Amino acid sequence: MKALIFDGRLHVSRKEPIPVPGKGEALIKILLAGICNTDIEITRGYMGFSGIPGHEFVGLVEEINGDDQRLMGKRVVGEINCACGRNDCAYCCRGLGRHCPERTTLGIYQRNGCLAEYTTLPVENLLEVPESIPDPMAALTEPLAAAFEILEQISLSPDDEVLIVGDGKLGLLINHALSTTGARITHVGKHAGKLAIARTTGAQTFLLNDMPDKQYDIVVEVTGNADGFGFSVAHTKPRGTLILKSTIAANQPVDLNPVVVNELTLIGSRCGLFQPALRYLNTGVDLSPLIEAVYPAEHILKAFDRAETKGAMKVLVDFQTDS
Amino acid sequence: MKALIFDGRLHVSRKEPIPVPGKGEALIKILLAGICNTDIEITRGYMGFSGIPGHEFVGLVEEINGDDQRLMGKRVVGEINCACGRNDCAYCCRGLGRHCPERTTLGIYQRNGCLAEYTTLPVENLLEVPESIPDPMAALTEPLAAAFEILEQISLSPDDEVLIVGDGKLGLLINHALSTTGARITHVGKHAGKLAIARTTGAQTFLLNDMPDKQYDIVVEVTGNADGFGFSVAHTKPRGTLILKSTIAANQPVDLNPVVVNELTLIGSRCGLFQPALRYLNTGVDLSPLIEAVYPAEHILKAFDRAETKGAMKVLVDFQTDS
Repeated sequence: MKALIFDGRLHVSRKEPIPVPGKGEALIKILLAGICNTDIEITRGYMGFSGIPGHEFVGLVEEINGDDQRLMGKRVVGEINCACGRNDCAYCCRGLGRHCPERTTLGIYQRNGCLAEYTTLPVENLLEVPESIPDPMAALTEPLAAAFEILEQISLSPDDEVLIVGDGKLGLLINHALSTTGARITHVGKHAGKLAIARTTGAQTFLLNDMPDKQYDIVVEVTGNADGFGFSVAHTKPRGTLILKSTIAANQPVDLNPVVVNELTLIGSRCGLFQPALRYLNTGVDLSPLIEAVYPAEHILKAFDRAETKGAMKVLVDFQTDS
Repeated sequence: MKALIFDGRLHVSRKEPIPVPGKGEALIKILLAGICNTDIEITRGYMGFSGIPGHEFVGLVEEINGDDQRLMGKRVVGEINCACGRNDCAYCCRGLGRHCPERTTLGIYQRNGCLAEYTTLPVENLLEVPESIPDPMAALTEPLAAAFEILEQISLSPDDEVLIVGDGKLGLLINHALSTTGARITHVGKHAGKLAIARTTGAQTFLLNDMPDKQYDIVVEVTGNADGFGFSVAHTKPRGTLILKSTIAANQPVDLNPVVVNELTLIGSRCGLFQPALRYLNTGVDLSPLIEAVYPAEHILKAFDRAETKGAMKVLVDFQTDS
């Protein structure tokens, strides 16, 4: 099969063996796969990953190694963390397999990913995609789940004033996710065009330079750069909550003193459960403004280049059109 | 009266006017006052403070400007934040006057402090000290309240494994405060003698170099230095909670990525309510091992030098012995 490979350099292999699903796993034929900033980080050495990257996909189940064949032939998306699932695991027993210390992660850690014609995942990681959700929307399930993760971690009410800092892909998905709560959302970023997308949920928006000197109950830092942290702290009310979504280069100088003095709560936030994301997509919401381009699989390296372009929105790779 | 003054340099004035209590305020004759690291920071420019420093004291009410004279002649301690107290203040109406945006703070911000023969505070800030609590213990109420503040912010249960990082004064007071919950406490520090004090509450202790590679549900960072942050993050379980008590020099390079990846909750923690601290002191607990020395007021500058000594425990100044 054709697959993107990172083994110190990024290249395409046309002769990768089709993976063989292990016990309890499914073989999934990829329809569309998304390119994430994490994939770009991987090509810079993140997680020391070597193999097939990619962890965002919608695909068809072609084979199941196990008794439960209910998902055979179904269109699915898949949670990316493969946990031990044992009853005595302090994380798995709480439904927190995404923190299981023995987990592998699709295309990120110790497990080949989905930027390929086929991938494998445990059947229990798969969710059938409702018919009403088009493939490109389904391919956004994973990053949208990361956005909904915030609502697994905190409660929002219509009384809350929320500020989202950063108008990239994930920032806009977070805007969508948080808008489901009725909270009053303000979105600040650097790009007028992206902020126009942010306003479609009813959010108020500001360009960074026009941002008023105001503090919010809840702030979400999703800029992906080190400057975002100080800005976000400064706009969080005393005793307020700051959600950290950005993983930025390590050892940036940051000032934690206002966190202590104003008794802020900072909550790191990463992967989420897929079900809330699928439910939201099933409302018929149109997230196509967040899609930058769809490339056929034969141009996957071009797709990667496009995804690396500063300010790029979500780039998808179409494996159906592949020869 | 005699008072310590910081006006760019630290010196003693013997001719400061005795302060006049404003409406609703009490004039308090200081018995003992404590020197805090914040006072030392003030002499390095913190908060741009100028005036009489000091915010830890036990004293006698000598005069009340107002109708409610119930505390006249009583031995009191006093909460240090003087808030607006208005019903329409988003903080005061929630009992969070210590975050009121219009607050002044005793000896720290816009209000003279208690390293003097007399100070003033609003009557509503004062709490009578139960007779059973000796003066030196009562003088520890303020830092002990900062320790108990953690229990205003999170709940601890006997199932929780807690790590306190840093064996200074505040770290040891936190050890005492958290030990009241029955949680299993481990205390790590650099000083065998201080860790011996930590063990009096039943805590397990480790010297820094002997610290096992173990993660805890709840970690309290109270080292007062920048290295403590990374160490504390590394010893917090995924989805665990890290309490930040240290205010360290700004713009230290820190790595926030593990906070995001492991979805840690960081909670800044500062001043606390006095009542839980007084209740704990009223159990008869002996915190005298935390007191480094008591200096007569005529040697207040020496007391300050002693407090600045690396590793010093709490230094108190006795204003009763003053001539």
